[in-house]
Amino acid sequence: MAKKTIIVDAMSGDNAPRAQIYGALQGGVENDVRIVFVGKEDVIKNIIFEYQGSIPEYEIIHAESVLTMEDAPSTVMGEKSDSSLALAVKALKEGKGDALVSSANTGALFTAASLILRRLKGVRRAALGAVIPLEKRFLLLDSGANLDVTPEQLLQFAKMGDVYARVVMKRLDPTIGLLNNGSEEMKGTPLQIETYKLLKESGLNFIGNVEGDKLGKCDVVIADGYTGNIALKTIEGVAKFSLGEMKNIFSGPCGAIAYLLVKKKVLKLKKKIKPAESGGAPFLGISMPVIKAHGGADSYAFKIAIGQAKDYIDALKIMKESDF
Amino acid sequence: MAKKTIIVDAMSGDNAPRAQIYGALQGGVENDVRIVFVGKEDVIKNIIFEYQGSIPEYEIIHAESVLTMEDAPSTVMGEKSDSSLALAVKALKEGKGDALVSSANTGALFTAASLILRRLKGVRRAALGAVIPLEKRFLLLDSGANLDVTPEQLLQFAKMGDVYARVVMKRLDPTIGLLNNGSEEMKGTPLQIETYKLLKESGLNFIGNVEGDKLGKCDVVIADGYTGNIALKTIEGVAKFSLGEMKNIFSGPCGAIAYLLVKKKVLKLKKKIKPAESGGAPFLGISMPVIKAHGGADSYAFKIAIGQAKDYIDALKIMKESDF
Repeated sequence: MAKKTIIVDAMSGDNAPRAQIYGALQGGVENDVRIVFVGKEDVIKNIIFEYQGSIPEYEIIHAESVLTMEDAPSTVMGEKSDSSLALAVKALKEGKGDALVSSANTGALFTAASLILRRLKGVRRAALGAVIPLEKRFLLLDSGANLDVTPEQLLQFAKMGDVYARVVMKRLDPTIGLLNNGSEEMKGTPLQIETYKLLKESGLNFIGNVEGDKLGKCDVVIADGYTGNIALKTIEGVAKFSLGEMKNIFSGPCGAIAYLLVKKKVLKLKKKIKPAESGGAPFLGISMPVIKAHGGADSYAFKIAIGQAKDYIDALKIMKESDF
Repeated sequence: MAKKTIIVDAMSGDNAPRAQIYGALQGGVENDVRIVFVGKEDVIKNIIFEYQGSIPEYEIIHAESVLTMEDAPSTVMGEKSDSSLALAVKALKEGKGDALVSSANTGALFTAASLILRRLKGVRRAALGAVIPLEKRFLLLDSGANLDVTPEQLLQFAKMGDVYARVVMKRLDPTIGLLNNGSEEMKGTPLQIETYKLLKESGLNFIGNVEGDKLGKCDVVIADGYTGNIALKTIEGVAKFSLGEMKNIFSGPCGAIAYLLVKKKVLKLKKKIKPAESGGAPFLGISMPVIKAHGGADSYAFKIAIGQAKDYIDALKIMKESDF
């Protein structure tokens, strides 16, 4: 079997290009994959030259510009069509690699992926998956791309989420929950009530409605993009608040001593809930594997995303053979 | 000015009737209000007899039955119309008190309040407010009563929330935010886009859309009941998860010593985010003040709710003079 190839948008992200390049080099070796870097050739060459570790097989596709956070997402198809992001997506379409990882603006990456790549056969909408750490990591989809969806589209999200959870998140028989305002079958708006029926008959391991305080109890949580985004951001906000309060508890002289006593556990918790550990966000429903790594990803986070992209290639093969 | 009178459903709640009666007695003295207890007369008399502290002016309305968590909310109007909950709401309607506090099942209390009491003049829907502690306490409404609302109804929620935040939560010029999946004006579904326009022109201190990670930044957060419930439960879930993790950090011998060093701060944080400290949930849009105290309220939490009910009487006078 030929080596898998991961295309890397080297120039997008708060810590780009160094974090992306170092992360991809390390992830390339660890996962035994080829890397195709897209970005300014001389910059990439210099950073690879500086890098101290082992280097995987790689090539570089030159891109003249970079899409910044100031650029509107739509510019990726117009004045920024020579950006590393746009060229990386085109390279994926042209078969120069099997999957793509980018830390670019979510909207721009989603726009480019949707317009340049096709959707999976039979899939009506592509969804933005978010892997969120609570009691355990779970996949929330849609986490913000589709505000207006039908029950049939949510069922498709669930089918794709099931495959992703099995192959990439390594869950056996993943549990699927429907985000809702109560656990009973008739809860929610007509959208949830209809979706419940479809999920119940789907053959998936559907465990019913899950309320906001039970999110970490299942592997895949299905929601429309509006509600999913509210849940995602709310989790982020409360987690940030809690970490801030914890920092406050360990401040001052007594706090500093207390911290030393429990440091190992605190660091373990921080690692558990650190977004980087969860990898990036998969776009589900696109015909080729695209992983959106965090904008603020460091090289470690980017390395994790490379491994995720490799597994997503296998997941997508299964999705392509699935009946939607 | 005559003394205000608070009607207390003495029999509903996990710790009823003792927590409700002790809390009401203490709250009655502290807030200088009369108490009307509704419940089993002999039981209430015995508990008051046992009580060691000062006792406010009070009377008792006998109720033969209690609505339990096993009873469907609708039974409050039928076979359980002789319950302490049903009779307490009727007593409020008949002017035997100025406000009502109950730890009963939210659905049953909301049903009884909606059917027995009228809505505020001009108000189309009553909302369930939740007072939630994060960076600061904020009022979320609707937190679950109305899944299907119009922009005009959300504007009414905002107007009522503004008064409640001023009078009961003591906020000067309360900030109002619209829960949404982005900060820009055109974000959200048609419901949010239309509501944004109305709020912008309302004369309220509208600060725009707030995302899930910015909830603790404003005084009043407006949402439809479906989304509000998702946000509320998600906050509860992540807060519970965080507290569990913190407990884990302070477990074991080293943890126990560390805990002693920072105990004061931990207790302060626990107090800050303890639901009881936020008081109960106001029903907004009902023509008389009804506060839903927590089902698991202890006497302290119930006492807080009594003070809240007293202030809600003043807030409701202002709402009655408002133009909806």
